[in-house]
Amino acid sequence: METFDYAARMSRAVAAAEAAGLDGLLVSPGPDLTWLTGYQPPAETERLTLLILTRSHAPVLIVPALEALSAVGPVPLLEWRDGSDPYALAAGLLAADGQYGVSDSTWALHLLGLMGARPGTGYRGLSDALPMLRAVKDPVEVSLLSAAGAAADEAYSAIRSVPFAGRRELDIAASLAQLLRDFGHSTVDFTIVASGPNGADPHHAAGTRIISSGDAVVLDFGGLMGGYGSDTTRTVVVDSPSPRLREVHEVVRQAQEAAFAAVRPGVSCQEIDRVARRVITSAGYGERFIHRTGHGIGVTTHEPPYLVEGEERLLVPGMCFSIEPGVYLPGQFGVRIEDIVTVTPSGGRRLNNTDRGLAVVH
Amino acid sequence: METFDYAARMSRAVAAAEAAGLDGLLVSPGPDLTWLTGYQPPAETERLTLLILTRSHAPVLIVPALEALSAVGPVPLLEWRDGSDPYALAAGLLAADGQYGVSDSTWALHLLGLMGARPGTGYRGLSDALPMLRAVKDPVEVSLLSAAGAAADEAYSAIRSVPFAGRRELDIAASLAQLLRDFGHSTVDFTIVASGPNGADPHHAAGTRIISSGDAVVLDFGGLMGGYGSDTTRTVVVDSPSPRLREVHEVVRQAQEAAFAAVRPGVSCQEIDRVARRVITSAGYGERFIHRTGHGIGVTTHEPPYLVEGEERLLVPGMCFSIEPGVYLPGQFGVRIEDIVTVTPSGGRRLNNTDRGLAVVH
Repeated sequence: METFDYAARMSRAVAAAEAAGLDGLLVSPGPDLTWLTGYQPPAETERLTLLILTRSHAPVLIVPALEALSAVGPVPLLEWRDGSDPYALAAGLLAADGQYGVSDSTWALHLLGLMGARPGTGYRGLSDALPMLRAVKDPVEVSLLSAAGAAADEAYSAIRSVPFAGRRELDIAASLAQLLRDFGHSTVDFTIVASGPNGADPHHAAGTRIISSGDAVVLDFGGLMGGYGSDTTRTVVVDSPSPRLREVHEVVRQAQEAAFAAVRPGVSCQEIDRVARRVITSAGYGERFIHRTGHGIGVTTHEPPYLVEGEERLLVPGMCFSIEPGVYLPGQFGVRIEDIVTVTPSGGRRLNNTDRGLAVVH
Repeated sequence: METFDYAARMSRAVAAAEAAGLDGLLVSPGPDLTWLTGYQPPAETERLTLLILTRSHAPVLIVPALEALSAVGPVPLLEWRDGSDPYALAAGLLAADGQYGVSDSTWALHLLGLMGARPGTGYRGLSDALPMLRAVKDPVEVSLLSAAGAAADEAYSAIRSVPFAGRRELDIAASLAQLLRDFGHSTVDFTIVASGPNGADPHHAAGTRIISSGDAVVLDFGGLMGGYGSDTTRTVVVDSPSPRLREVHEVVRQAQEAAFAAVRPGVSCQEIDRVARRVITSAGYGERFIHRTGHGIGVTTHEPPYLVEGEERLLVPGMCFSIEPGVYLPGQFGVRIEDIVTVTPSGGRRLNNTDRGLAVVH
């Protein structure tokens, strides 16, 4: 695992908070804590773990006493024991009328505990207040995302030669997960295998449906490698496509291509969404493209910037996100094509590079 | 998977909310949503999914449009599309000055979104407002917890015959995870293997330390089977124990035994903690028992009731929780012994039944 300059990241976060009119940031276990400190407890739980970053004092990490030995790292610890009140402890470090950013996935239980202990404080969600804090990746981060993308590409290339017809979605999903691990992933976060009519459900969980000849199969998979994410989608067909599938696939491919071609610094996030949507709408499928065009990726597989109508922020070199238009026909099939793309000074560069044509499997 | 009477559970939850002075409950993906509806999306994400339970109208589940096909179940859906405002949608179903319980692990981002859309509403954490909602298990639930406990016991019995000396903690953890799956677990949530000095860290993540002769090894593992949890701990020794280890292990064993013997309806949760702590304090190790005595278990492996000082609620037949005292000696070793126990009309019954003596492994 790479080691990053966590002190620099924490300083940058404090400065960004100040610029946004906040007194500081409160960060519980999850991607922001990992990114800021490298500390990664197994999960967020009912026991409060909280990094407090403010202008007025040095960073401090509040931890349950029983996890203190695991938490030793770049930040001084403040331990609390079961039966004592961690919210009162945290509140003592907050300004009585302070405004704080709080990491998105902080449990409501903990936020309400803080609000109760310091009723005068105010809060904003971190990705709402500072959406761009982690959005622009440095060259090391881009290279890690690129390596994760290349591994996912290897997995896609390999999965095309396994038998599909007669097997369950779950079997293909298990093979995909194993391939991601074989090619270096430490975690597999999702392996969507959505065959035939199941493809019309964009977040379909692979199930027991038996794949058969003629099925379109949406393969959407990713996880973490070296601490950074992969996420790619290809739609394949078993044996041979219907004319309708061939037509829809080509529409989605053109939408994905057009959106990618529009990527360059200074273009708004929503413009990328509009470009993809325009292609699909012109072909008559606008109502069947039922999600945004993409999301950022980094230490998580879903984060700002979001490529969605209403997101007026501009693309900046170093941003990394998915471009993943799709068309979903209930009762029939779905098609989605997704690459991770990074913004360069002159345009965009794909971190997934397998063929985007309608591949035939058997 | 068992099918439960979700409509009855939702009715019970609404009644409990009303009795607690709340206008309703807001439940996002996680154990409460699973328990109330059976619906289990892959994860909580930045896209709002929210079950709204109130006295004033029938249950409704707000879902992202792209997950609507997966979410079809016992509750009518209200879909929202990327780019629209899900908080405004949810707020339209809330009373302007209503008080709501919100599931513990709801993201702060979502709670703040609701607060922003309906500034007059108030919130309490669900386990704070209704800690006992899921705490008393029905006979089917107890039998599922019992089956999960028996499977964990099988895993412990099997792990004792694998070689420990010369292998890494990670290798033993992998074997434990495989054994839990072999004996029927669908997920493995944790496999703590904490050898020698690592045992002094109660939540140690299994690592690359090579286990050697004389080491104490804390084995704490569990997951879900049939939708309900297991969680058991035994401390073993490689080849032969030091006199100190033998002494400390016996203290912890007696504390665990005394706490179990104290379980019966009408005794307070904190009294069970006190009984265990008294034994360990009398032996001179009170300062080294650095966590509460136990936690509830059900569709999660950590939930109310908590056996901790300050928890004055009384035990009721059907409650299920861990009893897991421990002693942690920094730089030396740790010892913990844990069983899941259910409260019966006349006392307690253990759902883990392997030998609690200091087992020798090789």
